[in-house]
Amino acid sequence: MNYPAIIEEIYKEVGALEEQGRPATYIPELAGVDPGNFGVHISTVDRLNFGIGDYRKPFSIQSIAKVLALVFVYRIKGADVWKRMGVEPSGTPFNSLIQLEADKGIPRNPLINAGAMVVCDMLLSLPGDPVNDFLAFVRELSNLPDLEYSKKIAESEKSAGYLNVALCNFIKSFGNIENETDRVLDFYFNLCSLEMDCQALSKTFRFLAHGGVTVRTGEEVMNASRTKRINALLQTCGFYDESGEFAFKVGLPGKSGVGGGIVAVHPGRYTISVWSPGLNYRGNSYKGMKFLELFTTKTQLSIF
Amino acid sequence: MNYPAIIEEIYKEVGALEEQGRPATYIPELAGVDPGNFGVHISTVDRLNFGIGDYRKPFSIQSIAKVLALVFVYRIKGADVWKRMGVEPSGTPFNSLIQLEADKGIPRNPLINAGAMVVCDMLLSLPGDPVNDFLAFVRELSNLPDLEYSKKIAESEKSAGYLNVALCNFIKSFGNIENETDRVLDFYFNLCSLEMDCQALSKTFRFLAHGGVTVRTGEEVMNASRTKRINALLQTCGFYDESGEFAFKVGLPGKSGVGGGIVAVHPGRYTISVWSPGLNYRGNSYKGMKFLELFTTKTQLSIF
Amino acid sequence: MNYPAIIEEIYKEVGALEEQGRPATYIPELAGVDPGNFGVHISTVDRLNFGIGDYRKPFSIQSIAKVLALVFVYRIKGADVWKRMGVEPSGTPFNSLIQLEADKGIPRNPLINAGAMVVCDMLLSLPGDPVNDFLAFVRELSNLPDLEYSKKIAESEKSAGYLNVALCNFIKSFGNIENETDRVLDFYFNLCSLEMDCQALSKTFRFLAHGGVTVRTGEEVMNASRTKRINALLQTCGFYDESGEFAFKVGLPGKSGVGGGIVAVHPGRYTISVWSPGLNYRGNSYKGMKFLELFTTKTQLSIF
Amino acid sequence: MNYPAIIEEIYKEVGALEEQGRPATYIPELAGVDPGNFGVHISTVDRLNFGIGDYRKPFSIQSIAKVLALVFVYRIKGADVWKRMGVEPSGTPFNSLIQLEADKGIPRNPLINAGAMVVCDMLLSLPGDPVNDFLAFVRELSNLPDLEYSKKIAESEKSAGYLNVALCNFIKSFGNIENETDRVLDFYFNLCSLEMDCQALSKTFRFLAHGGVTVRTGEEVMNASRTKRINALLQTCGFYDESGEFAFKVGLPGKSGVGGGIVAVHPGRYTISVWSPGLNYRGNSYKGMKFLELFTTKTQLSIF
Repeated sequence: MNYPAIIEEIYKEVGALEEQGRPATYIPELAGVDPGNFGVHISTVDRLNFGIGDYRKPFSIQSIAKVLALVFVYRIKGADVWKRMGVEPSGTPFNSLIQLEADKGIPRNPLINAGAMVVCDMLLSLPGDPVNDFLAFVRELSNLPDLEYSKKIAESEKSAGYLNVALCNFIKSFGNIENETDRVLDFYFNLCSLEMDCQALSKTFRFLAHGGVTVRTGEEVMNASRTKRINALLQTCGFYDESGEFAFKVGLPGKSGVGGGIVAVHPGRYTISVWSPGLNYRGNSYKGMKFLELFTTKTQLSIF
Repeated sequence: MNYPAIIEEIYKEVGALEEQGRPATYIPELAGVDPGNFGVHISTVDRLNFGIGDYRKPFSIQSIAKVLALVFVYRIKGADVWKRMGVEPSGTPFNSLIQLEADKGIPRNPLINAGAMVVCDMLLSLPGDPVNDFLAFVRELSNLPDLEYSKKIAESEKSAGYLNVALCNFIKSFGNIENETDRVLDFYFNLCSLEMDCQALSKTFRFLAHGGVTVRTGEEVMNASRTKRINALLQTCGFYDESGEFAFKVGLPGKSGVGGGIVAVHPGRYTISVWSPGLNYRGNSYKGMKFLELFTTKTQLSIF
Repeated sequence: MNYPAIIEEIYKEVGALEEQGRPATYIPELAGVDPGNFGVHISTVDRLNFGIGDYRKPFSIQSIAKVLALVFVYRIKGADVWKRMGVEPSGTPFNSLIQLEADKGIPRNPLINAGAMVVCDMLLSLPGDPVNDFLAFVRELSNLPDLEYSKKIAESEKSAGYLNVALCNFIKSFGNIENETDRVLDFYFNLCSLEMDCQALSKTFRFLAHGGVTVRTGEEVMNASRTKRINALLQTCGFYDESGEFAFKVGLPGKSGVGGGIVAVHPGRYTISVWSPGLNYRGNSYKGMKFLELFTTKTQLSIF
Repeated sequence: MNYPAIIEEIYKEVGALEEQGRPATYIPELAGVDPGNFGVHISTVDRLNFGIGDYRKPFSIQSIAKVLALVFVYRIKGADVWKRMGVEPSGTPFNSLIQLEADKGIPRNPLINAGAMVVCDMLLSLPGDPVNDFLAFVRELSNLPDLEYSKKIAESEKSAGYLNVALCNFIKSFGNIENETDRVLDFYFNLCSLEMDCQALSKTFRFLAHGGVTVRTGEEVMNASRTKRINALLQTCGFYDESGEFAFKVGLPGKSGVGGGIVAVHPGRYTISVWSPGLNYRGNSYKGMKFLELFTTKTQLSIF
């Protein structure tokens, strides 16, 4: 399969679309990003790496980082993590409080905001220096030894984050947050402030396409069974209330961020990252979704 | 991969479990089924067929038949079907009216009861004699030329089906049912009354593992792209509010029925059917779920 | 207090308003009513009777009749009726299924559609010939010996009543309807088809202002304690999700119907009926609400 | 009417009940109150004052204070307050976030927690020194010149108040809180920390039974029309999701607090306060509700 040629072709086609969605506006750091940015990068398990467009420009990966926090906690605590949240798609927008009320503080899954906060809380309760350990983990995975949380973005998120403050305190009121809510929220906003480019993103997530083992160093991040489960979660829950649509049209596990990034995983083959800051009305990258739909259609390689 | 050996091993292991769930009790035709029944059958795209246990005893496939109605309508009407229902997991029990109220009569997906009723309504609006055409279609797919609706089961379902009557009239009140509700409900109950054994079930659904083409006759039921989409739907929506769990533990698209049957699809490889009438608390076959979880674990072959 | 003078003054003021709301359109019998109709009638406990405008034109009293069915059942079964429904305002539109789902088939109160259906079901389960007994009861109360159900309206309601069919079957699915749903719905639609003019309406309900005793015949319909409770229910639940607004602005117990009628009760003093077919966006008579707000403001006589 | 004799009789009867509910346990200041406390005090518009039992022991009036904050803001801002909240009963528990989500941050009424927070926010936005002005207002009304917020209770509430923090931030996320949430919450917890005894409570609220004019000083707190409206609100919304039950059984406007206090208003006649710390399962004083039900039954004097 000639991935570069197919990517180039679709990049042109989607790049030419007039409609490009609208960037998130709730913080200036996202609102000010040029909506014309558009980058793609693929990393295959047999070490092909190919990028096009703005694939070397860093952007705020936002919720995509939640997968990394989940992996970090899951490999330490194992199945215990599922005592405090589910693995079911939420069927509602990413920040719904209704479901939390019905489910008494147990988030539906670790990829909606509520679930990610519980993951952050579990991470903070780990022994040692978990906040730095996690950063070291991401630096190693991404091969970005200088990666830092973006203070500016985290501050901005915090100052606009009333809904997230509400969510975290709501979960705490049910007893499903152990640490003080301010600490959980601080880490949560830091987590979402990480920045990467498409190239780093597809390389960072490649272990999910490779049975849990990194391609670069050959280390096992998670065993095959857990890797399979994370991929299943990305499939059913990775795109909030557009997860079904993404499975339907693209047919790959993946995760989106409100910064306009998407990473998708084809187990056994590749990871692919797309970045275009304009969002569709459900909060996922407009061109990113289009690109990936065409990509699995033209390669005829979805997991289904 | 020696599927028969693996199946035999797991069949013994799961068969020995004391816990077996409880059969559905809302109609005598289901309540009276011996909960000790347990059958498995696999059909691969390269024509391996292997069954064990009660794999030749017919049972009521119930909601599994909804997939066949959807395929029948989808291949005639194409993407138009998505104007009247979504492709998102519902996140709520299979017969929730809440979501319908919020979504103004548009069911979340075609596999929950509400969505299946809209599919039935679309089928009834097709030209010609759609009820018989559909039966002919299923007979051909299943290679069961004498297959009939089970009048007894359909009658029983109808007499106990107040919730379904409510659902259908509720959708009609939003204008998303064209035909008279009695007619839609009659066909819906007939559809759910179909009976097959595990062998017929895995063979009937094998086209979904084979790019949309039947293995027996080589005919294209649907093209590859639509087949992929149906598989994606089975992955995200096939098990009501246990769909995430099934993806997480089993990692295959599939569909369950309240009669205790499950069919799962591994695209490119096989379909596998399991039947054990005892249900877990979410209405899916207890032993069926266990069997399939072990099967994909031991074969290390999920789609993720 | 010179009620006639005050009524005349307000009648002019409200009659001159340009805005008059829009009549219900879901059945031709309501859609075809001249929206210019406007009548008022007061009946005091000391036998003053005064009407103005179209107070002698009969109209479809619709949901107002639910109070009469409730009174009929309540005086026979007493507090047992509260085993099958609550006395709390619903906080949601009159035909919401959400609350029924959350409350497992127990309607919030007897004045929303769901509760009225349970009342109809209880009535149908009474010994003897309850349908005719009820009609006789209303004839006696209203002093309209020839009063009949309006077959035409009932038929129309039924043919458009998918939502009500849904509601009734939904309640039945929880076991809170004893009789066959078709029978309950037939009686429900008949009940809502009753027609009266403003004069008959205020006279019919006057026993509620008179401690449960009719003014015309001196018979006790209900004792004082039960009468007080029915008035409390009319106060908190009589106007669907506008009940608070009505208490706030008008300050009297009352009940509205989608035909544009309203009857209000001032315990110890009077009942007053208003009819104007145009409805506000919450389904209550636009001019009727305005009239009553001004009436209690100018008389300075609300119960609060 | 011999109120003292009737009160004495019912006080004995209810005092003898074994069941007494359970005090709130979420903060030590409430959990530690002796559940055997039971006091009653009536204040009539013709200056009768009569108390029995523990009617001179101060207790935490909690949510009852919300009525005073509402009155304070309402008399300054008038009908403008209704732009930011409704007057409808909520039909759900007092701290539900669901309704807020559906209604986009507009609380159903000013007496549920969410609405009271919006009232607090409006109060904080008033010119001058509104926090002290409000305290002065309550001191004057209650004739308790030394009344202070209880720092200890307010601190305790705050440290246990995750759900209220969630609520306030949730409303803020919709833009319906102007001030910083910490400031709003501080005032909210202070407001709920006020302590009075039954005697002070019934005297404080007596202006609501007296057309808005205090009996002690003859000053108009609010005009008659606004007073009527506050009473209507107390009737339909004063007891969270037990408001209908209270109207049904007691038939008076009133407000309860989680400290076990209730104040009820009979317009034109009296206010009556009851305190018994044990709560029923809906969070209202168990013996308080019983007492008031018997009181209006035996006096035959409800507003209905």
